[in-house]
Amino acid sequence: MKMAKINISIPQGTRDFNAEVVYKRQYILDIIRNTFALYGYTPLETPAMENLETLMGKYGEEGDKLIFKILNNGIHEDKNLAKSRAAFENVAKGKNDKDLTERALKYDLTIPFARYVAMHHAQLTFPFKRFQIQPVWRADRPQKGRYREFYQCDADVVGSTSLLYEIELVVIYISVFNKLGLPVTIKINNRKILAALAENCGGLQNLIPITIAIDKLDKIGLDKVLEELAARNIDTTSIATIKSYLSQNEKTNNADKLNAIAALLGDSAKEGLEELAYIANFSFEGKTLPVTIDFTLARGLNYYTGTIFEISANNVTMGSIGGGGRYDNLTGSFGVPNIPGVGISFGVDRIYDVLEELQLFPTQIIAGTKVLFFNMGQEEANKAFVLANLLRESAITCELYPENVKMDKQFKYAERKNITFIVIIGTKELEQNTCMVKNIKTGKQDAIKMEELTVYFTSL
Amino acid sequence: MKMAKINISIPQGTRDFNAEVVYKRQYILDIIRNTFALYGYTPLETPAMENLETLMGKYGEEGDKLIFKILNNGIHEDKNLAKSRAAFENVAKGKNDKDLTERALKYDLTIPFARYVAMHHAQLTFPFKRFQIQPVWRADRPQKGRYREFYQCDADVVGSTSLLYEIELVVIYISVFNKLGLPVTIKINNRKILAALAENCGGLQNLIPITIAIDKLDKIGLDKVLEELAARNIDTTSIATIKSYLSQNEKTNNADKLNAIAALLGDSAKEGLEELAYIANFSFEGKTLPVTIDFTLARGLNYYTGTIFEISANNVTMGSIGGGGRYDNLTGSFGVPNIPGVGISFGVDRIYDVLEELQLFPTQIIAGTKVLFFNMGQEEANKAFVLANLLRESAITCELYPENVKMDKQFKYAERKNITFIVIIGTKELEQNTCMVKNIKTGKQDAIKMEELTVYFTSL
Repeated sequence: MKMAKINISIPQGTRDFNAEVVYKRQYILDIIRNTFALYGYTPLETPAMENLETLMGKYGEEGDKLIFKILNNGIHEDKNLAKSRAAFENVAKGKNDKDLTERALKYDLTIPFARYVAMHHAQLTFPFKRFQIQPVWRADRPQKGRYREFYQCDADVVGSTSLLYEIELVVIYISVFNKLGLPVTIKINNRKILAALAENCGGLQNLIPITIAIDKLDKIGLDKVLEELAARNIDTTSIATIKSYLSQNEKTNNADKLNAIAALLGDSAKEGLEELAYIANFSFEGKTLPVTIDFTLARGLNYYTGTIFEISANNVTMGSIGGGGRYDNLTGSFGVPNIPGVGISFGVDRIYDVLEELQLFPTQIIAGTKVLFFNMGQEEANKAFVLANLLRESAITCELYPENVKMDKQFKYAERKNITFIVIIGTKELEQNTCMVKNIKTGKQDAIKMEELTVYFTSL
Repeated sequence: MKMAKINISIPQGTRDFNAEVVYKRQYILDIIRNTFALYGYTPLETPAMENLETLMGKYGEEGDKLIFKILNNGIHEDKNLAKSRAAFENVAKGKNDKDLTERALKYDLTIPFARYVAMHHAQLTFPFKRFQIQPVWRADRPQKGRYREFYQCDADVVGSTSLLYEIELVVIYISVFNKLGLPVTIKINNRKILAALAENCGGLQNLIPITIAIDKLDKIGLDKVLEELAARNIDTTSIATIKSYLSQNEKTNNADKLNAIAALLGDSAKEGLEELAYIANFSFEGKTLPVTIDFTLARGLNYYTGTIFEISANNVTMGSIGGGGRYDNLTGSFGVPNIPGVGISFGVDRIYDVLEELQLFPTQIIAGTKVLFFNMGQEEANKAFVLANLLRESAITCELYPENVKMDKQFKYAERKNITFIVIIGTKELEQNTCMVKNIKTGKQDAIKMEELTVYFTSL
């Protein structure tokens, strides 16, 4: 009887990662992880689930809507039903209610980190340097490059305002992308300068509309940005200032840009400009740091208070592949004030896509089986099993074909798994204590003494 | 103004893993992962979420209740409200309804693997060997050693009935626990023998009650097992057979056990006994495999059809730390019949607890900062920054203290982070191109030329 074909799928916006993809992702993550570690950042892992109240209200109204909430178990049981029905009616009014859902999947790594620091700050050594590489979940509309389950890769240091950490994080970016062989541009800015611009243009209440508008410069062009500013009730003088600000940003070197903006914004921008200059002029490996000051860089609206970073890959069309910045108050919303910090993040999914597009993955990272022992009968296979295990003790990945079937079929298995070497131990070889080793890519064939097989493969 | 202390916590049954715990877990997982890989198993990762219909009905009634379901987003929006209210009423009746929840967190790795194989079987090369190391979620009542989020570590090979894979998986168990330095007992049995016992004791319909009862032998003792069998309407003759079966299981060597059960159960047990004997007698490293036949081993009720494995740690009181077995039909419930396989699993959380209790974690796995450069002023710190980066290029983990504060404070940071070496570059050192290196554990102190610092640390 043929069974009915059942329609099987995975949730929209999620992915299975097969071996090749896992190896390639692991390659990226290992480089990032090892680099973080070399600078004294230590790993933290937090649960997939957080209490709903930990997450709600932290990501703005739009963010809140994208949080995956977990239904309480047993809501339909007699003892819970009345409460959970009432809870549903509360949810129907747009509220949250613990009697229906009290847990949710984490939306980013920053809030769980803040929650962790708030819970444990009395025991931590500050400055506290942690990295965290874990999946997060967002109920975003899936589209190319945007998933509902994706990894974030963050390093943060909290408990210090030292700009040396900004520099360290820039150097980490440089180091990681060097190791990946990926040329990138590291843009930096400082939120204090955007604030100074707003102060020069009607006051700090204009920070958000101005930032939103100039953040779109790349996409919509100068004229549309100026139109948008007017539509947002920015006055003509201020628009002229902003226009000048944007045109100074066109200068090609950091020093000229810094001078021009200093002249334009005066004292109000002094602190931000000094911080930027310190980073941009820091001497590293005999040169200044390879950072590009970009006064239009904004990186969201509410969170960062000082330096901001954004990374884009050269030679390829793709949004930012990393970013971060300095914040004043990581844990304030958890009742623990005065913990400033600075952090960066790597966009692993996009980095993956860029490396794929530019064919920058090294071929040797696809770790597969190197040697297949053919199965030529029970006694022969038992011998092969033992020899295979000797190879494994020398870190050579190998397999024994599980059944004594036609050699054709065993060959095909080797080919489909991209296995380079086959080892045949038949009756004759068993008698003579030898094996026949064949490189199926070159056709080269050798008769090797069994006791020399490990040396044969380790000295290749 | 002092901010109000907010009560912060994480969901019951979940855990934060700090750096030390991450390193220790990683140590276990790396050994398991690398061992799987050496045998030609390749990694698979599946999403945290599956469609609810993929999971429901696969784990029995009790299992279904423990699945964490994810609330659909936007159920309270006007366009969805009527449907989601109706869906809630269906859920209130104990049904599932996609208009309230259509996704859930995975409960184990086996069903997602089966779903993956069912979706991709046309493209896979069989026998297909995969390993998977990922968290799963269960709404179990949290208690010591039982969590709502925990890792599973599975290796399975599907598409072959060869017993060589059973042997391979036993050897993987041996290899992993050898590398961990943890002495274990590997028990094996075969479900066909339990079936034969049931056939000898009133028929196959008695398999489940008999298995449930004898599975409790360790906990409740022989008399209570026999009482329970009687209470489950097993007749006196059958109970006598079972009593004999259990007493034969007391024999100390595998061969005697096999002979005794062959004599007791006759032909019906032949296949199971032959399979067990093949494994128990397999010659490996000049000896038979270190497995203990245990005819009372059952490993759940519905899933396994052939060999079953269970691992327990010696010298410590703890439930099983691993298990697995052979099954006939991985993907049948997804409409793809005839894919047999065999798999094993490692209980990482329990292995962690056992290694901790027996103090078997190597100390060097706690990778922390090795060298702290003191910050003695801006120019000195800039030099230290560059030297630190040279050390990192030689894989030495180091940090630069971020601020020029009292040496006491910098010392304390080194001590609290368990950093062994401090490097001091003051005005004098900067002039003389030297640094002062101190091992704060031994007190040993050296003046080293800056250009020799890397060699100093790499040759330690």
